[in-house]
Amino acid sequence: MNSKIKTIILGASGYTGAELLRLLINHPHVEITGLSAERNAGQKLADVFPHLGIYHLPDLVHIDELNFMKCDLVFCALPHGTTQKVIAGLPKHVNVVDLSADFRLRDPQAYAEWYGHAHQALELQREAVYGLPEVARDAVKSARLVANPGCYPTASSLPLLPLLKHNIIERSGIIIDAKSGVSGAGRAAKQNLLYTEVTGGMSAYGVGNHRHSPEIEQNLSDAAGAQINVTFTPHLIPMARGILATIYARLLPGKTIADVRNALHAAYDKEPFVHILPEGKLPSTHHVAGSNHCHIAAAPGAGEGQVILVSVIDNLVKGASGQAIQNMNIMYGWDETLGINGAAVFP
Amino acid sequence: MNSKIKTIILGASGYTGAELLRLLINHPHVEITGLSAERNAGQKLADVFPHLGIYHLPDLVHIDELNFMKCDLVFCALPHGTTQKVIAGLPKHVNVVDLSADFRLRDPQAYAEWYGHAHQALELQREAVYGLPEVARDAVKSARLVANPGCYPTASSLPLLPLLKHNIIERSGIIIDAKSGVSGAGRAAKQNLLYTEVTGGMSAYGVGNHRHSPEIEQNLSDAAGAQINVTFTPHLIPMARGILATIYARLLPGKTIADVRNALHAAYDKEPFVHILPEGKLPSTHHVAGSNHCHIAAAPGAGEGQVILVSVIDNLVKGASGQAIQNMNIMYGWDETLGINGAAVFP
Amino acid sequence: MNSKIKTIILGASGYTGAELLRLLINHPHVEITGLSAERNAGQKLADVFPHLGIYHLPDLVHIDELNFMKCDLVFCALPHGTTQKVIAGLPKHVNVVDLSADFRLRDPQAYAEWYGHAHQALELQREAVYGLPEVARDAVKSARLVANPGCYPTASSLPLLPLLKHNIIERSGIIIDAKSGVSGAGRAAKQNLLYTEVTGGMSAYGVGNHRHSPEIEQNLSDAAGAQINVTFTPHLIPMARGILATIYARLLPGKTIADVRNALHAAYDKEPFVHILPEGKLPSTHHVAGSNHCHIAAAPGAGEGQVILVSVIDNLVKGASGQAIQNMNIMYGWDETLGINGAAVFP
Amino acid sequence: MNSKIKTIILGASGYTGAELLRLLINHPHVEITGLSAERNAGQKLADVFPHLGIYHLPDLVHIDELNFMKCDLVFCALPHGTTQKVIAGLPKHVNVVDLSADFRLRDPQAYAEWYGHAHQALELQREAVYGLPEVARDAVKSARLVANPGCYPTASSLPLLPLLKHNIIERSGIIIDAKSGVSGAGRAAKQNLLYTEVTGGMSAYGVGNHRHSPEIEQNLSDAAGAQINVTFTPHLIPMARGILATIYARLLPGKTIADVRNALHAAYDKEPFVHILPEGKLPSTHHVAGSNHCHIAAAPGAGEGQVILVSVIDNLVKGASGQAIQNMNIMYGWDETLGINGAAVFP
Repeated sequence: MNSKIKTIILGASGYTGAELLRLLINHPHVEITGLSAERNAGQKLADVFPHLGIYHLPDLVHIDELNFMKCDLVFCALPHGTTQKVIAGLPKHVNVVDLSADFRLRDPQAYAEWYGHAHQALELQREAVYGLPEVARDAVKSARLVANPGCYPTASSLPLLPLLKHNIIERSGIIIDAKSGVSGAGRAAKQNLLYTEVTGGMSAYGVGNHRHSPEIEQNLSDAAGAQINVTFTPHLIPMARGILATIYARLLPGKTIADVRNALHAAYDKEPFVHILPEGKLPSTHHVAGSNHCHIAAAPGAGEGQVILVSVIDNLVKGASGQAIQNMNIMYGWDETLGINGAAVFP
Repeated sequence: MNSKIKTIILGASGYTGAELLRLLINHPHVEITGLSAERNAGQKLADVFPHLGIYHLPDLVHIDELNFMKCDLVFCALPHGTTQKVIAGLPKHVNVVDLSADFRLRDPQAYAEWYGHAHQALELQREAVYGLPEVARDAVKSARLVANPGCYPTASSLPLLPLLKHNIIERSGIIIDAKSGVSGAGRAAKQNLLYTEVTGGMSAYGVGNHRHSPEIEQNLSDAAGAQINVTFTPHLIPMARGILATIYARLLPGKTIADVRNALHAAYDKEPFVHILPEGKLPSTHHVAGSNHCHIAAAPGAGEGQVILVSVIDNLVKGASGQAIQNMNIMYGWDETLGINGAAVFP
Repeated sequence: MNSKIKTIILGASGYTGAELLRLLINHPHVEITGLSAERNAGQKLADVFPHLGIYHLPDLVHIDELNFMKCDLVFCALPHGTTQKVIAGLPKHVNVVDLSADFRLRDPQAYAEWYGHAHQALELQREAVYGLPEVARDAVKSARLVANPGCYPTASSLPLLPLLKHNIIERSGIIIDAKSGVSGAGRAAKQNLLYTEVTGGMSAYGVGNHRHSPEIEQNLSDAAGAQINVTFTPHLIPMARGILATIYARLLPGKTIADVRNALHAAYDKEPFVHILPEGKLPSTHHVAGSNHCHIAAAPGAGEGQVILVSVIDNLVKGASGQAIQNMNIMYGWDETLGINGAAVFP
Repeated sequence: MNSKIKTIILGASGYTGAELLRLLINHPHVEITGLSAERNAGQKLADVFPHLGIYHLPDLVHIDELNFMKCDLVFCALPHGTTQKVIAGLPKHVNVVDLSADFRLRDPQAYAEWYGHAHQALELQREAVYGLPEVARDAVKSARLVANPGCYPTASSLPLLPLLKHNIIERSGIIIDAKSGVSGAGRAAKQNLLYTEVTGGMSAYGVGNHRHSPEIEQNLSDAAGAQINVTFTPHLIPMARGILATIYARLLPGKTIADVRNALHAAYDKEPFVHILPEGKLPSTHHVAGSNHCHIAAAPGAGEGQVILVSVIDNLVKGASGQAIQNMNIMYGWDETLGINGAAVFP
């Protein structure tokens, strides 16, 4: 196949927008035909992202100025809550990969509870496919609207899903101690995200009630075939990119750490982007930064029957834009690694 | 009191040595009369720590060149394992605050197991007082040899001790997910601690079997009056200083998060260096960096009966040199905050 | 002297305000009686600076709510341009150390040119003493209003002043390549100062026309007895604190690098805060961070007659709040190092 | 062309080795057939670079174990001084791109002076082509041995070469104030490169006599047709990657800043990797990190006739491994941007 699909990115002035562009620039089947950015409309891309100015990409415009009739695919990198109406207004022939949280929760009530308002596009929500490729590849293939998973849910779900699905760990008492780089908080100017406030120290935030919990719990419950509740504690780490999730769970009676490793290997050894580390090795976000890879380690805890899982991803790649491209590749039947087969950038 | 005690620092070319000097330079009752540093013996202090060169401090010498007869107090900041023989050889009139791990574990078998060789000074080990001032102030007052607590054990024990002592949380299933800055690893040149290897990312290390576990478990068991085992997972964070411990525990039947907060307030409201944050606030290592303070928050977890504790200290101050000075102040009956009453350095 | 002066800080919610508080908390002659913060008025200090919340300090209020009649000294840490009217309205018995740029330039025309509006308090401007203690100690002693020097001008002037005063270097062609940490840009939320925008990279800014040039040139011209123009290029470095200035100058005929070193030693060897490094050593901002010290090195350049000077300070201490306290100490005839004699915080 | 050249990397366990692998993994015409690493011989690549372990690459071996007869191209990423003998021993049919400094200086006396020993392969030195593609593309095309330029010389030379060649700036008095990330110092464990020693501060090093000066001066002298001496001051910046060079020069009589900009545009507008920024914009290393691009800005200085040039590159890409691949592409007549056309990784 030599022709390219015409692709528009909505919300191109944020970090996930920039990361989509970085990864798509060399994608053989994609042509970027439009970029929107509300506050920065009218500017050149180089004005908001000088590192992308040397490529021949469209200027930033208001979403109203874009012609969706000539477009094949839209990546939606708009803020949570604003996306559902925009997508509802797109022509029906357009495929959509949505990087916001708007279509991730299947339960409208859960959505309303966590996001503070009723969902504006319930029919689309029912149509949307939650695009964690390693578990939903077939559904993504035939989807028109893919809800791209969040960064915390991706890092948290990948190690746990096979263990719940195959009844290796207990369904209750799962603790996810998650650590994120700062780019996960976006590009809006906020005092608590200033360099001076972040560098040289770290903090916990959102203990006990973080927005990402319901998405994680939905994923885990699907795998377990039963309602799963988790304790999820996010921390802000002085690094630009990366998520590391340290997960504490308990083995079911009769199960061992070998069962854990076997289940993880069985689930992921054929996956291009999920890698189970050898025994004794522990993952670092350094080893996935800039890449679409996820590294996972499993080790016994100190307590009887306890297992500790550690997973790492780049929040902007496998946790957002890279996974969005992986979903696009699946939707179009291309090699799933096209455009996202780069190695981590280290050091 | 106007006279000053003559004080020697052994191992002055490491980070805890430098931090002792920074804090002692303005201490009204301390005169630094000797500094040892094996590899750097013969050098001026300015050669290893240019920021301390402007003070009028002794040159670095071999330990053999020091005259301990004219010395009142020794701070021992030597590597683990090398300290016990040195301290055993000191004149008996000399008081000692030992920052190594050599005298922290009361059980000789546990020591041998974790450090790989039999303890060389068992009598001294029996004499040593484990100097966590908030729980052992009276014993420290009359001690000649204080074993200064480790950084991870200090950050982990302070939030848990009152809760175990007063039967508010369960004794089993405690999980400590700890995050440390890089200075905790010392000043020796190692590839994995290079700037390029650390900046921009993070990792877990020592999952399931870290050396600090037995010290933490000794502290917690003392408070509980029963053997306590914990799961302890340390992480390396790209910051120079600071430890943040996120601790997961379960309330005993009938206990509430209010009981947790009350116990913490009762234990620490009169303490000069331990502070319980108001409900809804979470601690940051930024707010204790460079200071001897510890901030603690308690919040309910998502699961029924779960409690999450978050504590922060500066590993080089309350986790090492500051706490050593606090112990010295107690030993000599001085105001406990002398020399260590500075605020955190932020930003 | 045992009594304390009643001291108010205007603009206490910014970084220089916080640094004043950190340093003054343990000052033996200062009592903090009032704190203003326009946007944060009504809040507790702990709400804007949690690390200072454990001290017993006043709440933040609007400036109108402060009683200046009972106040001895005001530190003004307000934004440039807003200060002159505020100070003009203070009772005449109040001493003032102003950390803004409002009273630094003697020439009203230069002020208007660089700050875009006519000066609002010309009489005060004439009265103000430019408080670089190493050159204006006597004038500061009898001053009521001290204009505290800027961070770049402090780092740039200290190495050059003795060399211009004693005719050792040429008056033209001086180049100052300056590098600053991010705290110099303040605490206001701006996108270009976000952690994600700053960490991992660096940039030049303001090439050829930076606001600090006229203040530097005023200082140098005073020393030289002739108009001096400099080339000043500031850079933003991914670090919270610190300024390093690399200065290129040419020796006058017959002068040598030894003359440079001698002049620097003659000027500063008795100064408590300015230190000339031994030959072959180069300064690092690490060695002054958190302290009021300035380190200076002088070395020959590669070209005939060229000299390279390198100086470092902490922009928030010797470049702002520490120097302000040094000026206060001089105004009141106290030991000049009171409250600011701490060593650098390293690592 | 569908076949691939068999390629060996010597010194694959260092940062430039890793960066070569990252960039070559997706290069369509390259097959990695051997990797050497002296200290790490016998290990898997994943043991020294976990992020590269997921690709199917050879294990690390001693150089003696490699079969160069079946090899088309060798990238030499060995330490300075050790390379010349190795290359002299290779079969003559093998093409070489050498990333060390061993073949960069044409003058054997200069080499001996700066590197402390006589050159061991003078004939090869005469054969070697200094591979700065923008000025030596034709020579590289027919070269068998390319001496890949250093990082500082690349960043320093690109802005200056057109200005010296076309007689726009003076030949004397050029000052290069250069700032480098830490990866430029390599991966060997050294105390001064520890995270704790580097983060949060910066320093100058090597004032007046840095090893990179003669390479820069050779480049500039070639362009000027006359001997050029420069003042070069390197600084160590707390960032993993990136070089920013701030260059001060004086216009020749009658020349203007417009002449500077025109010469730069004329030299580089057709170059794929060198970009002249629009007036008023200043470069940041953020915008080239991870990429093979170089951004250059030119601005008038404050002094009459002064010009300030600012250039940025990634020291590991355009300053090392990316440029090496660019040279390989030229040697083989391929599209010059193959494998190195990625955008910068930001944030």
